[in-house]
Amino acid sequence: MARTYRETVTTPAAAARGVGSRGRPFVSLLSDFGLRDPSAGIMRAVVAGICPNAVIVDLAHDLDKFAIRDGALLLWSAVPYLTVGTHVAVIDPGVGTERKGIAIQVARGDVLVGPDNGLLMPAAARLGGITRAHLLENPRYSLPEVSSSFHGRDIFAPAAAHVADGVSIEDLGRAVDPRRLMALEWPRPAILPGRLRSQAIYVDTFGNVKLSALVEDLAAALPELHVGETLHVGVGNGAGGPVVTATWSRTFGEVALGAPLLTADSYGRVSLAVHQGSAAAAYGIGPDTALEISRASGPTRPPIPGR
Amino acid sequence: MARTYRETVTTPAAAARGVGSRGRPFVSLLSDFGLRDPSAGIMRAVVAGICPNAVIVDLAHDLDKFAIRDGALLLWSAVPYLTVGTHVAVIDPGVGTERKGIAIQVARGDVLVGPDNGLLMPAAARLGGITRAHLLENPRYSLPEVSSSFHGRDIFAPAAAHVADGVSIEDLGRAVDPRRLMALEWPRPAILPGRLRSQAIYVDTFGNVKLSALVEDLAAALPELHVGETLHVGVGNGAGGPVVTATWSRTFGEVALGAPLLTADSYGRVSLAVHQGSAAAAYGIGPDTALEISRASGPTRPPIPGR
Amino acid sequence: MARTYRETVTTPAAAARGVGSRGRPFVSLLSDFGLRDPSAGIMRAVVAGICPNAVIVDLAHDLDKFAIRDGALLLWSAVPYLTVGTHVAVIDPGVGTERKGIAIQVARGDVLVGPDNGLLMPAAARLGGITRAHLLENPRYSLPEVSSSFHGRDIFAPAAAHVADGVSIEDLGRAVDPRRLMALEWPRPAILPGRLRSQAIYVDTFGNVKLSALVEDLAAALPELHVGETLHVGVGNGAGGPVVTATWSRTFGEVALGAPLLTADSYGRVSLAVHQGSAAAAYGIGPDTALEISRASGPTRPPIPGR
Repeated sequence: MARTYRETVTTPAAAARGVGSRGRPFVSLLSDFGLRDPSAGIMRAVVAGICPNAVIVDLAHDLDKFAIRDGALLLWSAVPYLTVGTHVAVIDPGVGTERKGIAIQVARGDVLVGPDNGLLMPAAARLGGITRAHLLENPRYSLPEVSSSFHGRDIFAPAAAHVADGVSIEDLGRAVDPRRLMALEWPRPAILPGRLRSQAIYVDTFGNVKLSALVEDLAAALPELHVGETLHVGVGNGAGGPVVTATWSRTFGEVALGAPLLTADSYGRVSLAVHQGSAAAAYGIGPDTALEISRASGPTRPPIPGR
Repeated sequence: MARTYRETVTTPAAAARGVGSRGRPFVSLLSDFGLRDPSAGIMRAVVAGICPNAVIVDLAHDLDKFAIRDGALLLWSAVPYLTVGTHVAVIDPGVGTERKGIAIQVARGDVLVGPDNGLLMPAAARLGGITRAHLLENPRYSLPEVSSSFHGRDIFAPAAAHVADGVSIEDLGRAVDPRRLMALEWPRPAILPGRLRSQAIYVDTFGNVKLSALVEDLAAALPELHVGETLHVGVGNGAGGPVVTATWSRTFGEVALGAPLLTADSYGRVSLAVHQGSAAAAYGIGPDTALEISRASGPTRPPIPGR
Repeated sequence: MARTYRETVTTPAAAARGVGSRGRPFVSLLSDFGLRDPSAGIMRAVVAGICPNAVIVDLAHDLDKFAIRDGALLLWSAVPYLTVGTHVAVIDPGVGTERKGIAIQVARGDVLVGPDNGLLMPAAARLGGITRAHLLENPRYSLPEVSSSFHGRDIFAPAAAHVADGVSIEDLGRAVDPRRLMALEWPRPAILPGRLRSQAIYVDTFGNVKLSALVEDLAAALPELHVGETLHVGVGNGAGGPVVTATWSRTFGEVALGAPLLTADSYGRVSLAVHQGSAAAAYGIGPDTALEISRASGPTRPPIPGR
């Protein structure tokens, strides 16, 4: 009767619409609309108005404005934990211009809805890749009056709600070749003998710094890395930046209060953190700051040609 | 089977309670309670406790404290997109004093619930005007213990939930003449030959400045205004303020990054914006800042008597 | 047909699971995850994925980071207004260490789920005390992969959702003696003849200062206290701090704009406030600031030995 989460959410059987939520369609929402204005609430209301039976989950709406890459990362992080359903994401500086609105179906069975600006692509890849994509063109599935600056309300939320309510994405508009959609990838880390060159791609609300590198990248660069090992993290390009001495840890509480640690975050990404503090503030790290990780026991960081 | 949003929400047939949400009553919530305290969540829980079948949508709870006019504007903005239902708004600096709690029925069929301080009035007008209003007096429809400082929890949310659950607003308390309710209007713009005098009434989370003027006011002042036309926006009263040269645009992406534009916001209101920037920060504009719009091609701004 | 809130929520009959929500289980969520990251949304999605029929209410997620005492206070404040159900709270600086995850059943019938760090204890006491407690050990009721830094997602939300879905807390893991759980109490006020010594324990988003003292403590210290009486509030330990002259009031609007008042907050706690202002900012008060309340009409504050 009671099932585990994976049985509920991600088995092939669950991929059939509705199974994961016992007949109630699942819709998630993500945006940079902030929480002081009612824009996010209005999107939710539009979904509920069209598909009142939907289970609607607000993932986050207070992302940095226009930060498409942040949104892509957070959606990528969230989707494995979401019921198979329809996921709307709106970080859309190009709203009202030539950029298209799209609905993407992925191998797991979900439909992703939003602007064609790369925002949806990492999540689509994580859910097994795109099986088909359609433009949002059919006026039947948008609001009757479409503004030029709030497609979240007028196009994306209605399209998603209609899909949740049973409309096929084929009915939303013409098919588009997935290879022609705008791509988005974060910078790939460089796996070198004994060191990993990567960069910060996101700072969370705790001040933890998330790197472009995944844990397997670090393991490839530093074979036989073990918990408790001391690592060096060179901050910034060139010789000027600080070198942080951090412990490779499973979790925050393994180091002293205020001490730095490197860890796998809860999505498998390398993260530089401070126990009950902010690594970003402590070391002056923001998005795109270069970070190079090496063993404390290894040779000192050699001069790197071309830096 | 699938219906457009307007069919779902705003046709006369939908005005009958429940139709717009297939039998599930719709309740929306708006407040200045912030998001660090649980006050907004408690209101939601009280509604859910009384009417568990309701579709509850939080519009926004992080409004500026005590900003009744902001709340009135945001509720006015949101209601056309909400399913016919019960809408609670609580910005209530007079809580516990002589000000009354009210439930207002409007022509579209919705019921608005909150303090009698003007907050609900623009939304009521937008939904077709008030058909009847009642005081929130009946202790049967409030919590058994009513505090003197949190009527959102103790009076407004319970009253709204009971209405959503089928209670008539007549049962909430005595009828009150709608003309005796506290009024709230934003300052009317002045439509002059070749120029529009208005003022900022709200700055959204992107820094876009919303004016008291609607697009039709601007069109009346500047006949045959066309997309791409250059306009001047005089900021502040008198000669001292900057004059912003902004393009009349349909959307942000029609001007260069960082450039100013005037546009109709997604609610039909004139808005001064900066593409991927904050107009409020760039030009020092806050609520109530005077703004005067004229054609760049027209005569220079003449001295205005009495300013 | 329509019932009052107390009939719905807190009568003994309602304590049977589901009665308060007409068969829909009630789940609330509280955390310090912030609202820019999707962590809180993911918790909600996990609950909805396992128990789609649940009424899920987010109480607050933007609490100060690591502020276990704040979370305990806010949960204590909220629970009387929540439908009998399952309440998840996650302020968890010790995540991934030896601290245990627990589910606590209380006399009212609710189940509280979270880390064993004191966070749940005041709420448990307020709901009638603990009737049994179990560790969260059974992997069947957590996500298949458990991270070392996000137990809200991997352990607490799944356990709560399974309990909401009908799983007994006995099935979650071994029983634990409630007396061995981590305690948490706020500092007790000192009730002295003619004065109350207490301290600030929380500042809400309006800047109202909540004291460790309840109204009955103040009444015990200052017999026959009456509305409108002038009180003195000595701020800080020792002679250096300011003495605020505040009116004992039922609500904010009973004093002039910007004037201070002492009042019972809406949870029965003594609160120092400023009408449409921030008492915390005006008087430099933060968590743990000592506050001593006495009658303005009484003798001047005597020197206190040892201060």
